[in-house]
Amino acid sequence: MKVADFASIPEMKMAEGVTARVINTVTMTVTHVRFVKGAAVPEHSHYHEQSTHVIEGQLELTVKGERTVLEKGKVLVLPPNVPHSARALTDVYVIDVFHPAREDFRGKGFEG
Amino acid sequence: MKVADFASIPEMKMAEGVTARVINTVTMTVTHVRFVKGAAVPEHSHYHEQSTHVIEGQLELTVKGERTVLEKGKVLVLPPNVPHSARALTDVYVIDVFHPAREDFRGKGFEG
Repeated sequence: MKVADFASIPEMKMAEGVTARVINTVTMTVTHVRFVKGAAVPEHSHYHEQSTHVIEGQLELTVKGERTVLEKGKVLVLPPNVPHSARALTDVYVIDVFHPAREDFRGKGFEG
Repeated sequence: MKVADFASIPEMKMAEGVTARVINTVTMTVTHVRFVKGAAVPEHSHYHEQSTHVIEGQLELTVKGERTVLEKGKVLVLPPNVPHSARALTDVYVIDVFHPAREDFRGKGFEG
């Protein structure tokens, strides 16, 4: 087993006002993402399946042009290759989970 | 995309005082697990890779006989087939992430 403190994992900048603490395992990546109010991640897509779990705040998601607001206590499941963007309506803390592991995030956080 | 409220997902009983809200995707399972203080999950193992993210509380984990205490803000990564048990030192809220999906949890929560 490997153990880490979220706080000891270096923050990776995703966009202005958006930082992620990355945990890579062999088969998955989990990111603890914090947005400051108003910060946004532009539209993007990836071949990884994703789920997004809102721990704190309100996050506006636009998925294939369809807008939805996810507040604390909601979960979103995104199939692979679906274009999506996000904008924080408040300060936000979400946990994003990906399979397979995000090879583009290797070496940028904790390797578990 | 599919969206759910954690609160709308039925609770699955894992052990006395331990309940999980299960989110299954095609390739992964994420569980939001709550322990009442003192509750325990007996030793078990599974072929899935796992990571455990402590959102609230203090959880004592015993992994292959080695004891560690995970408090809020810690993450544990467990390779497949490693025997582990857990005991809550306080009320606890953790998020467990598994790959592949837990086929034994299919139909017991939200299918995303």
